[in-house]
Formats: sequence, structure tokens, C-alpha cells
Amino acid sequence: MPPIDDHLAIFDPVTDPDQAERYLTDWPRDAKGRARAILRPRTVEEVAQIVRLCAAAAIPVVPQGGHTGLVAGGVPSADGTEVVVSLERLNHIREIDPANFSMTVEAGCILANLHDVASEHERLFPLALGAQGSCQIGGNVATNAGGLNVLRYGMTRNLVLGIEAVLPDGQIWNGLRKLHKNNTGYDLKQLLIGSEGTLGIVTAVSLRLFPKPTQVETAFLAVENPAAAVALYGLARRDLSDLLSAFELIGHVGVELAQEATPDLRHPLETRSSHYVLMEASASGLVDLSALMQRFLESAMEAGHVLDGTVAANSAQAGALWRIREDLVEGQARRGRHLRTDVSVPISDIAAFLAKTDAALAQAEPNAIPVAYGHVGDGNLHYNVLPPPHMAEGDKPAFLKQCEQVVYAALPEFAGSISAEHGIGRAKLGSYLKGLAPEEKALTEGVKRLFDPKGIMSPGRLFEV
Amino acid sequence: MPPIDDHLAIFDPVTDPDQAERYLTDWPRDAKGRARAILRPRTVEEVAQIVRLCAAAAIPVVPQGGHTGLVAGGVPSADGTEVVVSLERLNHIREIDPANFSMTVEAGCILANLHDVASEHERLFPLALGAQGSCQIGGNVATNAGGLNVLRYGMTRNLVLGIEAVLPDGQIWNGLRKLHKNNTGYDLKQLLIGSEGTLGIVTAVSLRLFPKPTQVETAFLAVENPAAAVALYGLARRDLSDLLSAFELIGHVGVELAQEATPDLRHPLETRSSHYVLMEASASGLVDLSALMQRFLESAMEAGHVLDGTVAANSAQAGALWRIREDLVEGQARRGRHLRTDVSVPISDIAAFLAKTDAALAQAEPNAIPVAYGHVGDGNLHYNVLPPPHMAEGDKPAFLKQCEQVVYAALPEFAGSISAEHGIGRAKLGSYLKGLAPEEKALTEGVKRLFDPKGIMSPGRLFEV
Repeated sequence: MPPIDDHLAIFDPVTDPDQAERYLTDWPRDAKGRARAILRPRTVEEVAQIVRLCAAAAIPVVPQGGHTGLVAGGVPSADGTEVVVSLERLNHIREIDPANFSMTVEAGCILANLHDVASEHERLFPLALGAQGSCQIGGNVATNAGGLNVLRYGMTRNLVLGIEAVLPDGQIWNGLRKLHKNNTGYDLKQLLIGSEGTLGIVTAVSLRLFPKPTQVETAFLAVENPAAAVALYGLARRDLSDLLSAFELIGHVGVELAQEATPDLRHPLETRSSHYVLMEASASGLVDLSALMQRFLESAMEAGHVLDGTVAANSAQAGALWRIREDLVEGQARRGRHLRTDVSVPISDIAAFLAKTDAALAQAEPNAIPVAYGHVGDGNLHYNVLPPPHMAEGDKPAFLKQCEQVVYAALPEFAGSISAEHGIGRAKLGSYLKGLAPEEKALTEGVKRLFDPKGIMSPGRLFEV
Repeated sequence: MPPIDDHLAIFDPVTDPDQAERYLTDWPRDAKGRARAILRPRTVEEVAQIVRLCAAAAIPVVPQGGHTGLVAGGVPSADGTEVVVSLERLNHIREIDPANFSMTVEAGCILANLHDVASEHERLFPLALGAQGSCQIGGNVATNAGGLNVLRYGMTRNLVLGIEAVLPDGQIWNGLRKLHKNNTGYDLKQLLIGSEGTLGIVTAVSLRLFPKPTQVETAFLAVENPAAAVALYGLARRDLSDLLSAFELIGHVGVELAQEATPDLRHPLETRSSHYVLMEASASGLVDLSALMQRFLESAMEAGHVLDGTVAANSAQAGALWRIREDLVEGQARRGRHLRTDVSVPISDIAAFLAKTDAALAQAEPNAIPVAYGHVGDGNLHYNVLPPPHMAEGDKPAFLKQCEQVVYAALPEFAGSISAEHGIGRAKLGSYLKGLAPEEKALTEGVKRLFDPKGIMSPGRLFEV
């Protein structure tokens, strides 16, 4: 054993193969890697020591959060050269400051726990994703996570006041201020946010909080088509005075997939349509949100934007409506290997993009089963594709790759993006690099060289090795 | 005349000395410069040609917006070596897309005009500052402008979806997307935002819009002290469900200064206190904002957070309340040379920071007259200082510099910032560099070298020459 591994061995490496398993793959289990070592430091100083040792020996490092990434960014490479640095033990709340509407937390804190801590102080931390029970805030920041409430509260980027990170040379960068406004020089933390582990390791963050909502109204609505959903979105923002917190478009196939996963899941409406909207508004204080939602829905139905709808009478009913959105993901997974995409277009182009992509896919792959759903307010669509039933497993990868090309080919007309929220990692590297303008590529590579001249941080993610 | 100047002469330079005057100074008139040429390109391609010519000849370039900056960033240097590039003729609205809640506009558009255009489409562009009648959006983006509505809508950074810019080598960078979500690689536009002209010239931007408010409630309240104002702010955010759009703290000296500037400006309250709050809430759609504000104020008075208050019954009355905030700036100006600061601390530390700074100033300079006001929701205070009456003009600069040091010396204890929104430019360069941590300095200088290896963009701003 060379000396470097002896040094690393003091950071409590995971050596038991069963225990190691979960550090070598992410939730989608598309990729599996091997690791030179799996380390679990307990402090930022320990993270810095590890990175300094690795930098000195030019050993690649990959930071890990909750293993819920969808682009194989946190999975170590197959050649076993990378040192995995799990942040799971840096999981302390350093401070909560309700009067400043902020809290400062370590990277390994699980998102759902942050919701609870904020709530105890009558505050909301609004980042909300399917993976919130296991994803970690450091990973959320490193990937600029999106989720369900972006239309109101923004991406993770918009929720970060300050960052502490270990830079690729092992220096600790203390950018951990909790100021709501600070206009002094380049805002370097913006580079770390969404850098997917390629510029350093986020060890702690200061986050913005909001008043805790005390009223929530959830509705499930049948609409005629995506264009009607987009029109309804504009009205909802106006009529509900931006108290809208989620606005999800779900196709009828999505509802069927949810019911496949959960057979006792009742269709909430009598009316059947090709498209549905799951929307939520939330408020604190003295607003009468229930009356507001009722009046909005009445006027939307009168105007013909809504064919049918139901409003949850209590949180149990709201939970049942949300299960449609959550269980359709599980329903897709049960169908086996499928294409997940994460594209975005301007909100005003959602209907045209869907129509165009549906037509192109029907022509290129008539047996493909599209499952499109997503966040209308962000122009972010998960245009997923299931292979036809009975397709041989061995044929699926090429088939799904072909479908992905069809979906991506529709984007340039709308100046759309191949990744609204999941990021690039290794899974989308080829498509990302193909679409990168030369001037952006040069600056991006320059930023990487500036932060990480030895190229030890998460090689192969965002950049070719 | 060397050939380079011949080349530049095709971009319609300003040569008349009277006309040139306004390109050589900013609104505060603290600094005056000279220019090698003052150019007014009409297109992004012309901007690119100018920058290419200057880059080839290593001639420094300083971009200019509406001349409303407060840190001498847009004023050319005194040695007359810099080429001024005014963006005022790039002033077209390229597109407004209400369904996407976005618009794409050129850098020279005046902020107030953007308000009007958005409003015609039932939308709001929420950036609001005193200078909005003459500042230009390109300058707002380059300086990450703040203003009155940051607590609800964020800084300019939060309002930018995409940027088109001319880089320091004359390349046009087309980052002009209008996507609400795009997670593909490093978010390079974040470097341009707030870079104060040191990394390139912003030529156009895509901006986020919001539903146009149709109800506005404005109140002027007497509070016992800054701590009461901070407590009231937390309650207001909760009770008004984040429909709060402005929350300004004003000391009694501020009211007196406003009345000095506008003698017929009536004090809106019977009660006299040391501190007042000017607050505004706004809403669109079906919310009953007037009832909401009434109920909030009743409960705030019952709880003892408000000593006395008045709510504007119409927009004329609201305007009169806002004049106090606006005219106090004019009142300060009439007192002659004075110290303007623009500090920020955590909201929870506002009262402690004010108490500490008041005490330190009273001890160091007993004759100084502090005028503190600011944006409570951002922790952003304009802790300004007037010299004592009858002080000789020649003594004021040293006196005010000394007062500035006292104010800044109170910041580290609260991890505060010397610039919440005005930026660094040349005026705050010394204080900024003194506070810059070594790891931030190295990365900041690296970013500058990456974008501008020849150092031609706005030299002497953010960096020493």
C-alpha cells in the first residue's frame, strides 16, 4: 500500500463491500463504479486534508451527497481511480436566524430535515423535490437543484446566500455570509453553484428562508390541451397574486402509470381528458386562500380554460392528488428501462414543442410511448419515452438513444435546453458539448483551469477526460 | 492622428465639448474624467468592432449607461486614455413575451421605459430605483442594481434570464436565452452580472417579468426604534403572505431633510418618533389587499409594534408618503458634500449595528450628523453622515473619510458588507481590496485574466491599475 492510501485511511474509509455498494451507484442505478477509497470526513478541515493529499498525488476526487443524482455525476468511474468523499457526516445545522430569514447548514444535511428545522422556527425552506427524503443540501447546491416550487422561489441558486467550500488545491474558501445583499466584486459562489463537483466541494451553505405557509390549496384540473394549461398558468399567477407555488402538467398516460404503480389510486375526476394540471397555492397570515382559489377556479371554468376540477378539502386529499404526480415516476420505473429527459423551452412554446416532438417521435419511432409531464411555470418538461411492450432488453438502449435524439432535435427551434434541472454529469456530456458555443466553451474551460489546474475534481463530468 | 483614432471616428464620436460634458461625469459629480473618444455605437456588431480595434491597440475601454452610478465606475479616468462606449443608442425592445413572463431588451433602454412596456402587456418589471428615469438596463445588469423591491423580487441578478455581451477580445457572446430553467454547465452570465464593466460590455438582456400589480397599499408608521422595525418586518412578511414589496426605515433626521428640500411636505403623522417605516404591499388579481393591510396594521398596533400610522387612501397620498423617502436624498445633497454609504448586515443585526455605529461615531466625531435609512428586508442601510454646519469646505473630505472608517469598522463584527448595492467602482476600491480574503482575491484576479488578459476593460475599477 503506497503512503497516500495510508494517509487517506485515517478518514474512516468504508471497506466492507456490502456497505460500499451504496457509494458506487446512484438512485437510477444506470451506472456503477469502483473507488480507490470511500471516505467520510466529519469536518471541513478533514475534507481539506483529503483534498490536499489527493491534489499532491494527483488523485481524482468525487464528492458525494445523497446518491439521488440522475446523470451519474456522483458515481465514481469504472476504473477505480477516484477517491469518493461522502459529505454525509457533515450534517449539522450551524445556525438558524429566523429574523434574518436564513439558516446556515452543513453540506450533508438531508433536505427534508432542513424543511423540519425551518418549520420549527415558523419559516419555510422552499426547495422541494421527489428525492427530498434522502438528497443532501450540498448536492442540491452543487447541482443547482430545481424541483416543484421553482416558479415561486427559484432554483437552488436563488436560495443560497453564502457558501463554504474546499477548493481543488485544498484551501478552505469561506464565503459563508448570510447577507441578503452584497455587491462587492465577482460573485464567485455562483460558479460553485451548479458546477457538479468540478470546481470544489461545497461543505456548508447559508440559505434563504421564507415565512412558513399556514394555508395550502391543492387542485387537480382537466384541461383540453397543453395550450390551455399555459393560458391557465398565466391567469393563475395573476388571479392568485403570485401565491401559486406549483403548477404541474400531467398527460393521461402519466395518470395511468401512477395507477399501475398504486392500483387503489382513484382518478380524482369524472371527466377524462388528454391533459391535467396539478396546482398548488400557499399562503401565510391573513389571506383567505381558500376563497381566493374558489374564485379563481370559478372564473377559469367560466372562461373555458378548465373542463373539470377538484380542490382538496384537507391535507389527506391533497396528498392523494400529489400521489398521482409522485407515483407516475414509480409507474415508469416499473415498466423497466426508459428514457428520462429534462428539457426546457420558453413557457410560451410548451404547446408547440410538445406537438412537434410528438409528431417527430411518431414518425421516427411509431411504437414509442411518450410520457410527458413537467413544471409549466419553468417551461421544464420531462418528455420521457417508454419502449413498446415486449421489446427485447438488448434492443432498448439503442432505441432509447434514438428517441433522445428526436426529443433533443426539437429543442434548437425554441432555443431550448437539454437540461433544465438534472444537470450534465457524465450521462449528457456528449449532447452538452455538441451544443456548447465556442465562446462559452473557451470560458468554461478557462474557469475549470483556474479553479482546478490539475483536473482532479470530478473528472469526466462536464468535461471530457 | 494615428490610424486607430481614424477607425474609431466612424462610430459617430461626440466632439463638441458641451455635449461631451455629460459623458465625463456621473450624477454625484464626485469625479470628472477625460476621454480619448466618446463613441455611440448603434448595434452589437458596432460595439464588437470598437472593442476589437481597442483590444488590438491595447486601448482601455469604459462602457457607459445612464451616468447614475455612485462609485465613479463609468467616469473615464483623468488621464484621457480611455475610450468611452455609450450604450444609449442600443435602446430597442427586441421582444416581449408575456406568456413566458419575459422580455428581451437592449442595454441602452431606460429602466422607466421598461416599466411602461411591461405594464402595457399586464406585466411588471420589478427593478425600481430612484434613478429609474435615466439609468439604463445594461448598467443595472453590469452593477447588479438593487433598489426598493429587492426584498420581494431580488437583485437584478435574480431578474436576468440571459445576456448578450461583447467580450474583451471583441467576440460577441450570445447567452441571450429566455429560459426560466437551464442547468447546463457553468452559469457564465453570473460573472458578467455585477462585474462593473470589467469583463465585457452587456449589449442586451432577457429579463423576468411578473404579473402587473393592480392593488397597492402604502403606509407610513412610527415605530419606537430600529428593533421594533425589524420585528414589524417579520410580522409583515408573515401576515401579508409575502405580498410586501418595500419596507424602508427612515430616521427622524431623514424626515427633516426631506422637509428642508420640500418645505410644503407635510409630516404625515401627529406622533413624533425617532424612527419611521414606509412600507408598501402590492397584489394582482382577487386578493383584497386593502382589508389585508388594515388587519395587519390593527394587529401590529395592538401588539405594540407600531406607535402610530397612516395608510394612503389613494395614489396621490401614496406619492406624498414616498416623497419623504425620495426628497431626503435631495435634502442631503443640499447640505453639500457628505458621506454616502451603502452597507449591509444580517437583518437580525440591524438594530445592534446602528447602536454600535451611532456610539462609535459620537465618540470619534461628536459633531457628525448621522442620517441612517435603508431597506430593512435586505439588511441594507445607507448610513450617511453630514458634516457639522459651518465646517470649512477644505476640512470636509478628511472629516468624511474619517467618518467612513468609523462606519466600516463596525461591519466585521456582523460579517457585513461595505457595498450592498452600489458596487465598488473606483470610489471603494481601497476598502474593498482591504477586506478581500486571499483565496477570493486569487480567484477574482484569475477570472479577470481569463476574460480580459490585456486588461483593457474598465481598468482601475474593482482592480488596481
